[in-house]
Parts: sequence; C-alpha cells; structure tokens
Amino acid sequence: MLTNRRNIQIEWGDCDAAGTVFFPRYLEYGDACTNALFAKAGLFKPVMLKSYNIIGLPLVDLRARFAVPSDFGDEVVYETSITEWGRSSFLVQHKVFRPDGVLALEIFERRVWVRRVSENPVAFQSEPIPEEVKKRFADPASVTDV
Amino acid sequence: MLTNRRNIQIEWGDCDAAGTVFFPRYLEYGDACTNALFAKAGLFKPVMLKSYNIIGLPLVDLRARFAVPSDFGDEVVYETSITEWGRSSFLVQHKVFRPDGVLALEIFERRVWVRRVSENPVAFQSEPIPEEVKKRFADPASVTDV
Amino acid sequence: MLTNRRNIQIEWGDCDAAGTVFFPRYLEYGDACTNALFAKAGLFKPVMLKSYNIIGLPLVDLRARFAVPSDFGDEVVYETSITEWGRSSFLVQHKVFRPDGVLALEIFERRVWVRRVSENPVAFQSEPIPEEVKKRFADPASVTDV
Amino acid sequence: MLTNRRNIQIEWGDCDAAGTVFFPRYLEYGDACTNALFAKAGLFKPVMLKSYNIIGLPLVDLRARFAVPSDFGDEVVYETSITEWGRSSFLVQHKVFRPDGVLALEIFERRVWVRRVSENPVAFQSEPIPEEVKKRFADPASVTDV
Repeated sequence: MLTNRRNIQIEWGDCDAAGTVFFPRYLEYGDACTNALFAKAGLFKPVMLKSYNIIGLPLVDLRARFAVPSDFGDEVVYETSITEWGRSSFLVQHKVFRPDGVLALEIFERRVWVRRVSENPVAFQSEPIPEEVKKRFADPASVTDV
Repeated sequence: MLTNRRNIQIEWGDCDAAGTVFFPRYLEYGDACTNALFAKAGLFKPVMLKSYNIIGLPLVDLRARFAVPSDFGDEVVYETSITEWGRSSFLVQHKVFRPDGVLALEIFERRVWVRRVSENPVAFQSEPIPEEVKKRFADPASVTDV
Repeated sequence: MLTNRRNIQIEWGDCDAAGTVFFPRYLEYGDACTNALFAKAGLFKPVMLKSYNIIGLPLVDLRARFAVPSDFGDEVVYETSITEWGRSSFLVQHKVFRPDGVLALEIFERRVWVRRVSENPVAFQSEPIPEEVKKRFADPASVTDV
Repeated sequence: MLTNRRNIQIEWGDCDAAGTVFFPRYLEYGDACTNALFAKAGLFKPVMLKSYNIIGLPLVDLRARFAVPSDFGDEVVYETSITEWGRSSFLVQHKVFRPDGVLALEIFERRVWVRRVSENPVAFQSEPIPEEVKKRFADPASVTDV
C-alpha cells in the first residue's frame, strides 16, 4: 500500500488565540497531503483532472480524532494512505505524528471521483474509479516521498 | 434546547479551483457558529474564557457529512445546537441548509472544557462543565439570533 | 461615490497566537467587501463574471496600513469605495473603523479587469472597463448596504 | 545580508474559483517566510518571544506587487531578507520567483518590535530592537536554508 510522509511545520498563522493549532488548518494540510499521495502515485492533480475529465475529489464524509495539541514551531509528520477502495469512492487516512512518535491526530476522508453535471445549482455525478488508478496505490515498492 | 441560526454568504476566497467551497472553510464557519451559540446563551467567549479560567473549547472528535456542494455567492444557514452534554465534554451539531431548505451538510464537533496545565509540550486537562453553563442551553424560551 | 459598509466580527480563527488578528485575514475580509460593493452596484460577481466574460478582478498592487490591532470578539466596520478609475484598472479603498470610530486600518487594492488568455503558464489580458460599469459607482443616491 | 530561500508548492486550497492563488495566501506564506528568516538567524520565534519578552512582530505597513499569477501545482521560491533597520521597526522584503526565474510578486512588510501594554483595548508599545538582533542578519557568511 502506497504511503506518503510529509513533514509539516506549524506556522504562526495556523494557531489561534489559545496558542495551539486552529483545527481547520489540520484539515487543509490533510487535503494537501492527499494530493501529495496522488502525485507520488504519478497522478499530479492538475494533470489528472484533465486526463480523467473529473472536477475534483470532493469529500462526502470526514472524521477526525484529536489526541494531542500542537503549538507554533512544532513539527509533525502526516502519514497518508488510501485504506479502502469502493466503486466510485475511497477512504484516505492521515495519521499525524509528533517528533517523539506520539500520535497527535487522525483524519479520515471519504472522497468521490466526480464529474460536474450542471452549473446552477452545482451538481456532481460520481463515476467508477478506473482500475489503473487504483493499481497505482497498491504497489508497496514505491518509496519516494513527495 | 437553545438553537442559533446564522446566515453565511459563500465568499470568493472560500472556493477552490473547482469553484465550490473548499471543505475546511465549512469547519471554520462551524467554529464561529459554535461561539455564536455560546454568545446567544450569554457566554461571550472572550469573557467566558476569563470567567471560568479555561483555555478554550478544543475538539477531540469531528465528523462531517457533505451532501450538496455550494458555490461562490450562495447563501447557507448554519443551525447550531448542543445535542449532548457529558461531564467535561459536549456535542455540537451544525445543520447547514441551502435557501431552498435542502440540507447541504452536517457537522458534529465533540468539544472539551479544558485548562492548560503545561507549556512545552502543550497539555490540556479536562474539567467538569459547571451546571450553570449547561442550564443556559436548555432554555427553549430564548429566540434571539446572534 | 458609492460606498458600502459591512460589520465584521473578529472570529477566534482570525486571531494568531498573540491574540490579535493575523493580518492576512484583514485582506480576506477586504476581498469580500470589494465583492459586496460590486453587488451593491448591481454587479453580483458570479453573474458579472459571465456577463462581461472576465475571469476576475485580480490585484496588481496592494497597500495596507495597520494603526490599531483588534482582538477576538471585536467588531469592526469596513467602509469600502472605489476612489479612482483607470482605463482597465481601478483603486479600491477600505477604511476599517473600530466601534468607537477610531481608524483601525486602511487597505488599498489596485485591481484589473481581465480575461484569461492562456492556461499554462497562466496569463491574463487586461480589458477596458465598460463605461456602464464605472457609472454604477458614481451614483451617490444609492444607500442600501449589502 | 542574510537571505532565506523557501520553496512553496501552490496547493489546491490556496486557489480561488479563478484557478489562481487567492492573494491573501501569498501573504500568509510571506509571514511564515519571515519567521523562517529569523529562525535561520538563530531566532526561532517561539523562543525569541520569550527571550526578549515581546508579543510578536506586528505589521504597520504592507505593500505587495503582483506581476504574474500562479496556479495550483506551481512551485515558487520566496527569497526573504531584511532590507532596512530602524530603531524599533524593520522592513522585510520577499521576492517570489517562478521556476523559470521570472519574478511573480514582491511583498514588503514593515514590522515593529513590540510589547503588549494593555489588554482591552489592545495596545502595543514599540521597543528599540536590540543591536545583537540586528547583527545576526548582517552576516553574509551564513548560507543554510530553513
């Protein structure tokens, strides 16, 4: 199973008045790490959207568990993989570790492979995920980080 | 049960390159709406933090279900209430509706009443939520929106 | 000269670890207020972009002066107007006041009326701003806030 | 003069509905790069704030010029240095280059060395910048990037 690791340094602007990370920032980083995992699988998102004629990988379900808070200046590691493939949806898991190896938080994103079918109101239509896409994430030989 | 309703207009900067809301923005609005619910209950957060000597209301668990996407210029309504009280934690529910009454998304935040007990690494200690705090949210007579 | 006033409540997530507004948030609010001024002039941006076949109103120059900081829970008023019209660019001014009338900050955005002319790399081509657009902002009779 | 270079990859969530970077994101990255320059000078901000008993390095004046837009997936380089020292303020310059060496934008931040002197309303008092702080940025021998 393909896994990507990305070091994230907590920035001043990521923290709220309590001095710890404002939780939506963790989810922004998660989104970037999902895209980095796809890039590692050879699917650089700007190219992939055009190649497969999809509008994006929108979320239908999100879950996060916050165990230990982080402060400005801390460094954490996002360890990202896809743990489940459905017909047109898939589950991304981010395990976020502190430098001492303690699990700081976990994020689970259920995303869908979609086309936009109308403009106003916006509507998305899910599409079957191509098998060749799924295969790219199964290869445990790949080790390069993005 | 005290409920707060807040109209949110989707801004240009809330949307990503697909032209629909970048999902962490929904959670930022949710955080603001939780604070607005507390303000409606007479607990304006900047004052509350000092009165009760707490550092904040950090999340330990987050869940969101996204049903219908929204675009720049759309208006949605966040309907916020606390659906469950524990000893030191509580569950906030946001139901987000489109103008036609369709449920666009739901957010569930489990938050904790905490003190900061050390600086480096950051650690929080949960405290029992005062009964007088819980009571303020039980009163169905309050109807003013914040 | 058409002016729009919008009340902004400083949210928890707008503040950084110093407890005051993280400055890029002021500029995000400014962007939303520029769009609100256009809406007040009858030019709701999602519609305007299509009607005039433009990609947006990107900035070429930005200036801001910060006089007095604001905290979580503070309310400020953005007073927005267009103070100068060029052939294809214009200058937006935001004066941001505290409730006591003190000027907290000022933002000046020079924006351009553009079409996208190529995809990779992105290039924009400025277009003359239609006279009918400029006229809408000259009418001092309009007083409704957006 | 000490200079820091940081590669920034433009993320999906940095872009707005026009598909190019939403301009406040450039300023957030600039803020992080200013902190990285201080870290390179041996002044890691979380430690520096305590050592010197200051609240932060708030902006009093901001200027930015946007020459070429960037898209999702682009990589840019922030080249950051302090070009001017005053008694209690200093000027940070960010030159942001595209991979082909073209200047995409420039940011100028005038920041102040301050203490917080009261809570409500917030007030900051500028302090003379210690000479030992200024000296750290004058050394052209330092080459490590942060």
